[in-house]
Amino acid sequence: MTSLGNGPETSGAASTGSAVPTIGVFDSGFGGLTVLRALVTRAPQAHYAFIGDTARLPYGSKSRRTIARYAAQSARFLVEEQRADYLVIACNTASALALDAIKEAVPASVSVIGVIEPGAEAARRASKTGDVLVIATDATVHSHAYAAACRAHGLRALEKACPLLVPLVEEGWIDHPVTAEVIRIYLDELLAEAAAAGLNPDVLVLGCTHYPLLKPVFRRMIPASMRIIDSAESAADKLVMHLSYDLGTPPPAALDDSVMKFFATDSVEKFERLGSRFLGRSVGKVELVDLGG
Amino acid sequence: MTSLGNGPETSGAASTGSAVPTIGVFDSGFGGLTVLRALVTRAPQAHYAFIGDTARLPYGSKSRRTIARYAAQSARFLVEEQRADYLVIACNTASALALDAIKEAVPASVSVIGVIEPGAEAARRASKTGDVLVIATDATVHSHAYAAACRAHGLRALEKACPLLVPLVEEGWIDHPVTAEVIRIYLDELLAEAAAAGLNPDVLVLGCTHYPLLKPVFRRMIPASMRIIDSAESAADKLVMHLSYDLGTPPPAALDDSVMKFFATDSVEKFERLGSRFLGRSVGKVELVDLGG
Repeated sequence: MTSLGNGPETSGAASTGSAVPTIGVFDSGFGGLTVLRALVTRAPQAHYAFIGDTARLPYGSKSRRTIARYAAQSARFLVEEQRADYLVIACNTASALALDAIKEAVPASVSVIGVIEPGAEAARRASKTGDVLVIATDATVHSHAYAAACRAHGLRALEKACPLLVPLVEEGWIDHPVTAEVIRIYLDELLAEAAAAGLNPDVLVLGCTHYPLLKPVFRRMIPASMRIIDSAESAADKLVMHLSYDLGTPPPAALDDSVMKFFATDSVEKFERLGSRFLGRSVGKVELVDLGG
Repeated sequence: MTSLGNGPETSGAASTGSAVPTIGVFDSGFGGLTVLRALVTRAPQAHYAFIGDTARLPYGSKSRRTIARYAAQSARFLVEEQRADYLVIACNTASALALDAIKEAVPASVSVIGVIEPGAEAARRASKTGDVLVIATDATVHSHAYAAACRAHGLRALEKACPLLVPLVEEGWIDHPVTAEVIRIYLDELLAEAAAAGLNPDVLVLGCTHYPLLKPVFRRMIPASMRIIDSAESAADKLVMHLSYDLGTPPPAALDDSVMKFFATDSVEKFERLGSRFLGRSVGKVELVDLGG
């Protein structure tokens, strides 16, 4: 049993005494592969099972009730079928709206880590002014999960939904003038709101797993003094802390040949094609799963 | 029984002898409300039941198998629960990929009309050169349903997926410089492809129910001689022909207080809020439906 970092986004403990834990990673689509990418770099010795609920994506525009139902089905698949010892909810929307539902859906022995709390913790470490900006999907912003997590760390957070960024990334317009213009419009609105609210933000939290692909564009658009927090990397850091504690040894630093299995609820061809963009290397074979939806 | 226009997109016949038929309208989301809007203008005396499968939208990025399963569930709901005599599949993606699955899911007495075939018929009437351009979602384009329907009418069709247009419409950026720029990029690519293929297109088919909201922008961007075909209006025209034939009387021309019921599989608040943009008037009350997905 572990008591490490048992904050609002962490529950359970590793059920395995084995040296090779299985880490289940869940996302509504491909974006969570940026979290998997960060995990594999940090914990190459682990086994990984990733499921993207691609038949029902995007979650970002859906209600809490629907998201909770979908996410719990994927979580059960990872634990019951893939024997995951840890679950990483690599989807900001599901972390914001369904973390409790996911914890209830799996045994208490499974550690469940979302991306919101690690993102807020990283923002606290990075911010000097105590004021942070958060950009995310509609559903994540309307849940105000980041604002609440930031407040618990003594930060003031201003959140903004940027619903066009996911489709732009999926269209492949990563380094594209239209994408730069959309980001400029969103950031201008956000910075104006921050100024009107008397905030002095020095951190920008990327609260959606698609956004790290746009990090170079954000970097060009924001003041040089502003830090960018990538929740994917923050969540990976947190899981590795858990692993080190549970296994009694730090994970090796070098990249290894991890065992990775990929599942999707729709079109494995599209997953294989687009997934590499997020994972940073070929996804390989993806297996189709029917969650009954 | 009717034999009117029993083409590849029409099946069955009206099961009602009543003067007030119920028309079931199905879409993956809100976009199909543009079809309902066109229907109500043409057949104000009918009763309408509209379902948007908003928990699982968008269909445009999903596979044939998944779309067919989802669409059949909604079709059965409209026929079994709402007693629809006619079904209008007001979703280009579902019309392109799931029309057969929908026809199999409901009794043969129910007339099923999609939007593809009426769009192709309207294109044939509008085109002098025989060459047409079709813009639609990823899934509709990859199905090549429009190309096949146009070919059956002696037309050559060049299709292009425009996946950013739906999110732009849903963001409310209807009359916005970014949207105009995205449309310009898509149209430039499409016109260049048409020229390279030796086509001389004089018709642009809007093969997605979100696109009619952008019609003024398209109008500014294309040559004045090019006609725009709105599949929503074409499908409504076709259904009214059916009604007139089945009921033995033409529908009255004046707009009346139609009986309209609205159902959604997710967030009725969002449906009520966004739906009016597509329907052109207030949607009123929307009922949440669980299709078991």
